[in-house]
Amino acid sequence: METLWRLSKRYSMVIEEYLREKIRGEPETLYEASLHIIKAGGKRLRPLLVLATARMLGGVEAEARALPLAAAVETLHNFTLIHDDIMDQDEVRRGVPTVHRVWGVPMAILAGDLLFAYAYRLAGEAADSGMDPATALRALREMTEAIVKISEGQAFDMMMEKKWDVSVSDYLKMIYLKTGSLIELCARLGALSAGASNEVVSLMGEYGRLIGVAFQIRDDVLGIVGDPKVTGKPVYNDLRRAKKTLPLIYAYSKLGEEERSRLRSLIGEKASDEELSKAAKMIENAGGISYALSLAREYSERALEIIKSLRAIDLEARSALEELAVYVVEREK
Amino acid sequence: METLWRLSKRYSMVIEEYLREKIRGEPETLYEASLHIIKAGGKRLRPLLVLATARMLGGVEAEARALPLAAAVETLHNFTLIHDDIMDQDEVRRGVPTVHRVWGVPMAILAGDLLFAYAYRLAGEAADSGMDPATALRALREMTEAIVKISEGQAFDMMMEKKWDVSVSDYLKMIYLKTGSLIELCARLGALSAGASNEVVSLMGEYGRLIGVAFQIRDDVLGIVGDPKVTGKPVYNDLRRAKKTLPLIYAYSKLGEEERSRLRSLIGEKASDEELSKAAKMIENAGGISYALSLAREYSERALEIIKSLRAIDLEARSALEELAVYVVEREK
Repeated sequence: METLWRLSKRYSMVIEEYLREKIRGEPETLYEASLHIIKAGGKRLRPLLVLATARMLGGVEAEARALPLAAAVETLHNFTLIHDDIMDQDEVRRGVPTVHRVWGVPMAILAGDLLFAYAYRLAGEAADSGMDPATALRALREMTEAIVKISEGQAFDMMMEKKWDVSVSDYLKMIYLKTGSLIELCARLGALSAGASNEVVSLMGEYGRLIGVAFQIRDDVLGIVGDPKVTGKPVYNDLRRAKKTLPLIYAYSKLGEEERSRLRSLIGEKASDEELSKAAKMIENAGGISYALSLAREYSERALEIIKSLRAIDLEARSALEELAVYVVEREK
Repeated sequence: METLWRLSKRYSMVIEEYLREKIRGEPETLYEASLHIIKAGGKRLRPLLVLATARMLGGVEAEARALPLAAAVETLHNFTLIHDDIMDQDEVRRGVPTVHRVWGVPMAILAGDLLFAYAYRLAGEAADSGMDPATALRALREMTEAIVKISEGQAFDMMMEKKWDVSVSDYLKMIYLKTGSLIELCARLGALSAGASNEVVSLMGEYGRLIGVAFQIRDDVLGIVGDPKVTGKPVYNDLRRAKKTLPLIYAYSKLGEEERSRLRSLIGEKASDEELSKAAKMIENAGGISYALSLAREYSERALEIIKSLRAIDLEARSALEELAVYVVEREK
């Protein structure tokens, strides 16, 4: 993962400086609330994907042209985090209290809305740094389609919390909408910045979709067997909210009626840590974790094949994208 | 107001059909929540302004080109209403329960986010119906700037609820950001659709800003002396939330220390209807209503002068915009 870390570190610094420079205004409280989660860090996976894709396909000039779009997707991602945290009533994110915990729900809604608008402002600035208007417009429109999908996916996710008859295919559709579509967008925007053909834009989009879905499956796995000290998220959060994660869906489908009702009784808002831990064990024993991991690995391998099939003009960026496809299924946080 | 009503009726039908046709998807619950306030009606003032401006300056072809943008601004407006209602804890809007009252806060946040994204989707479609990419991109970027302003304005508005040292100039800045900027945008988008010069785009923007601010001042006045049966809004809502409306700010500035503290004690969440009614009387007696109305009329007259100064190729649309400038300060709901 050496190349990935090197690029990631470099890009993170660039993006963080860029966002602090660009996201400024009044009232101060609103801007503090908007920057709170951005400043708390994060993997900056999405801008990395935009920039590395642009560089792989179009070299340093394409990378420079892609910078506003990279900043835009990170801003967009942070908007969704702020609103998701309100909806999920989460209290901690990236090791700091969530925005609505510090400033209250009204200001947090507004902080998310402001970042939403800033994502468009930043993306629009691509037209000021050498991107032709038609491509910049296309980038904004593709970004829009991703946000529609993310909103739909989040609604499906919330609605599934209240249901138990969720199939693997319902799940895969939901996480594509909620998580995969944005990562797909990132890869497409990188390719667009490089002036790639529609075919290459589509292939990169497919790569993004695959690693995005694999990333989310790994997230689900870490929510059940991950170390909260490493992940930075409260233990068994997903089980407490009865989130229909892949390990849970798979395990539930393999259990008999009696075990199902036992599993249901161990999960939810009122469950103790001990009960949740028992539920996690049941899911693991029923093969939920290994099933999820093997599916994620399959996605990762398909993504890897796509990258290998493409012509790269920058080999460092290509290595980083290859490593990224592996990282998403091996990460511990 | 005859011409205004005729155009308003025609445009409302077109816009409502357009939005119902375009805003569709899954999950059903999310889309129902998103369309709830749109379906409940509304003045459709913003799309009217886009369409009438396009028509006045560029005739029926410009009007047709502007339709996606007109639908976009109405969608945008409804997104802000859904989120504002959550922030302000309002229970009724356009005679129906607010979105968060029916579907809960999480789904209402999401419904607003979805409409936010749809506003961009619709505006982007202007490029599919004859608008060149550079102008379509400019329209999206101007829309973005308006949303940044609206978010900032809403934050200022919320923060002012907790303060008493609010000047008329603080107030005017806040309502320009919160309300005026979107109406300014509408007029600018109409002019852009007509291929107007930058000078005419700016003048139309100024017209929009003036009637937008006048519209909001009239809103403030109706919140104090309006008939809730006509306005459709709960009586004394603004006073209950200690909103710093222009009549209140002006009256407060004219009162002595003792009267000020009496006025403060009559306003707020805990005040009874009787106390709020006394506060309203105090504001009226201190000249708050007549001051606000005279300022709104001044804005309206300046807006009227701008329209009269412009060359129109459609006289019906010009008449409607002249009547609109008068309507915003004379309306009873």
